[in-house]
Amino acid sequence: MGSFHILPGFRDFYPDDCALRNFIFDHFRRSAQACGFEEYDAPVLEPTELFAAKSGEEIVGQLFSFEDKGGRAVAMRPEMTPSLARMVGERANSMKRPIKWFNISESFRYERPQKGRLRSFYQFNADLFGDNSPEADCEIISLGILILKSFGLAKDDFHVRLSDRKLWALFLRCSGVDDSEIPCALSVIDKIEREVPATIVANLEKIKNVDGERMFGDILAIKNIRSLENLGKFFEKFCAMEREVEDRISEFSKLLARLNAFGLGNFITVDFGIVRGLAYYTGFVFEIFERSGQSRALAGGGRYDSLIKKLGYGDLAAVGFAIGDVTLGNLLKEKGFVPTFPKNIHCFVIYSEQTEAIAMEHIFALREKNINVDHCLRPTNFSKQLKAAAQSGAKYAIIFGDSEVQMECAKVKDMETSEEKIVKIQDFVKKL
Amino acid sequence: MGSFHILPGFRDFYPDDCALRNFIFDHFRRSAQACGFEEYDAPVLEPTELFAAKSGEEIVGQLFSFEDKGGRAVAMRPEMTPSLARMVGERANSMKRPIKWFNISESFRYERPQKGRLRSFYQFNADLFGDNSPEADCEIISLGILILKSFGLAKDDFHVRLSDRKLWALFLRCSGVDDSEIPCALSVIDKIEREVPATIVANLEKIKNVDGERMFGDILAIKNIRSLENLGKFFEKFCAMEREVEDRISEFSKLLARLNAFGLGNFITVDFGIVRGLAYYTGFVFEIFERSGQSRALAGGGRYDSLIKKLGYGDLAAVGFAIGDVTLGNLLKEKGFVPTFPKNIHCFVIYSEQTEAIAMEHIFALREKNINVDHCLRPTNFSKQLKAAAQSGAKYAIIFGDSEVQMECAKVKDMETSEEKIVKIQDFVKKL
Repeated sequence: MGSFHILPGFRDFYPDDCALRNFIFDHFRRSAQACGFEEYDAPVLEPTELFAAKSGEEIVGQLFSFEDKGGRAVAMRPEMTPSLARMVGERANSMKRPIKWFNISESFRYERPQKGRLRSFYQFNADLFGDNSPEADCEIISLGILILKSFGLAKDDFHVRLSDRKLWALFLRCSGVDDSEIPCALSVIDKIEREVPATIVANLEKIKNVDGERMFGDILAIKNIRSLENLGKFFEKFCAMEREVEDRISEFSKLLARLNAFGLGNFITVDFGIVRGLAYYTGFVFEIFERSGQSRALAGGGRYDSLIKKLGYGDLAAVGFAIGDVTLGNLLKEKGFVPTFPKNIHCFVIYSEQTEAIAMEHIFALREKNINVDHCLRPTNFSKQLKAAAQSGAKYAIIFGDSEVQMECAKVKDMETSEEKIVKIQDFVKKL
Repeated sequence: MGSFHILPGFRDFYPDDCALRNFIFDHFRRSAQACGFEEYDAPVLEPTELFAAKSGEEIVGQLFSFEDKGGRAVAMRPEMTPSLARMVGERANSMKRPIKWFNISESFRYERPQKGRLRSFYQFNADLFGDNSPEADCEIISLGILILKSFGLAKDDFHVRLSDRKLWALFLRCSGVDDSEIPCALSVIDKIEREVPATIVANLEKIKNVDGERMFGDILAIKNIRSLENLGKFFEKFCAMEREVEDRISEFSKLLARLNAFGLGNFITVDFGIVRGLAYYTGFVFEIFERSGQSRALAGGGRYDSLIKKLGYGDLAAVGFAIGDVTLGNLLKEKGFVPTFPKNIHCFVIYSEQTEAIAMEHIFALREKNINVDHCLRPTNFSKQLKAAAQSGAKYAIIFGDSEVQMECAKVKDMETSEEKIVKIQDFVKKL
């Protein structure tokens, strides 16, 4: 039946699916507004060069890109950050800082579809511009936690693995790595859980001045550190940049203190295993993971203070994060945190041929009052209409029977209790 | 400044623009739910053949279409109806009828950008399946009116121009046009206001058995008819298909009677000037126009009972309409029906270094209660923070002064009246 198919990795949203999606979106929006973030949006389609300039090759290889009818190289966005950077960059000077913005939108990547990864997915993005303090980082991280808590998820369900690329960079500098090679070294370290040790060692050897075996051991040691105290001890033994390390650990302490003041200490794990793949992160980075079960990543983000300038705009500090709908939706379903979504009909109006005209008048009037009203389109016998009312899930049936209407009344039936009462038509809106 | 540009015909939504867009979307959604419609959504990207099969050549020439990395011919949707038809067609047998669905989404057409016409635009779509009665048509038309009324637009601002392609088809049949040529003839008639008479006459002459000059005169006569009574008189003189014409005029009367019962007679103009360009309409068709001013079209739709079957699914009656965001948004701005959109901060929290920790605890707690809270990120002097509170548009400043906190209190300042009161911290949520 039917000759058309949906593209692989894309989704239809039938009413139940759409209700779940909107339920998730409503929580995103509500939490972001509670934290004083304002909503923005950008085009789905942008010049390809915008994505190439920001994201580098991995993402460009996954673009839905093409030439439009005007000969422009264009692509459907693989993520929101490049468009956001363009928008903020263009108007940063005229906006009060900090700039706190959020967005909920669809992104597109041509990847092999698999569980939790689709070619089209929604993301919530929140970003804070114009402040490079740990307090700004805390504003972003706490919003991530607030969103997940708003669904009913608790500290046993998820945690924030919090790390710092600046401390990683200090370690690399102490190990003799040139500044120019630090981004490359960080991308090797980022892959340490996904590649075999021999490959990692070989990749480290490619970096100038590096003893791969020895550095591999140091990296494993750092990755297992779970407190700033132990990190300090590691650096004490390891290198001479005491001042820089101390300053950075002090910033990290401030961030943790602020998160603690928010009451969120239980949600945080200091974990230098988090590096984040994208080259543009410049400071604290974090990922939110399921604590048990499949330990899936739910969200990720961090500080990226040089991106806006790199794209040709003014200097503008930035920190942000994104959370996707697919993995989160799966988790909420598994945990039983998804409610049922009834059709949300408040009144079902029932009428005869004789009372049709007056029923219609009131159907439209109720709808104008933002009351959700349905009916059978045409008068059939009352038992059929009552059955339809029950199936609709309506809270009330409003029955315009011939005798009631003669008295300028209607019968209001509570569909749950089956209680019926006759009310004056002019009064019944008040009684619903 | 900055080296990136948005594509022509696309829009950035800075927070004010996004607020207006969401304001419009909220009215769409609210009205649709009030009428018992359920929300759905479909992929932005579909196989090109879906659009080609449904919409014909004009739209295919305007597609953002390309070959994806898997060699598939794909296109960004130019309208929602083809995806909707696919979705409904696939599951029609398992769904209770009538099926009443709505959607709000972006569509894409490569046209010359101009005022009121962009390459990316949002549309609200509402469709009712599984019922081919005038009452179903009324449900759709009245939803269109309900939406526009919900913004404050009244009968002097807009009207529904209501027509019937079945009556047009009867006229053509009476004039000797073959059934197979009726769609082609209707598309000539549809262009009558946009092309010079000589072109219309020449195009009519191309149809078998047609005297172009004569038919042109008849068409002008029909287009000027504004009542069913006069339409009946026209047909009386004109042709022998009395029974079919009578039946159809009776259906039209039923539709008008139902619209009148809804209290919407004042919004309706019987107007055979409306034909609708798309070939798939099979019955009543309508367009909603500004009544004065530029007389722009705001919305349009009609019955399309053969489309689902044509696409390879089962027989399914259908009626629907769409309303775009661009022309409507322009009209609402001109009429002054767009409110201002404040940042919607409820509380702005002010604190010192000494009270920072307790302030943070309450900031997060308030946000968890869905109260919109902002703050200066760090303690500065109170007058600076109060200024920021005023700029944020907050309703209340909550001041954690040192002496108040010692008494487990905070000062709540009403930012409008400047009234201040000291409240127990544990009580202040209740007082906000």
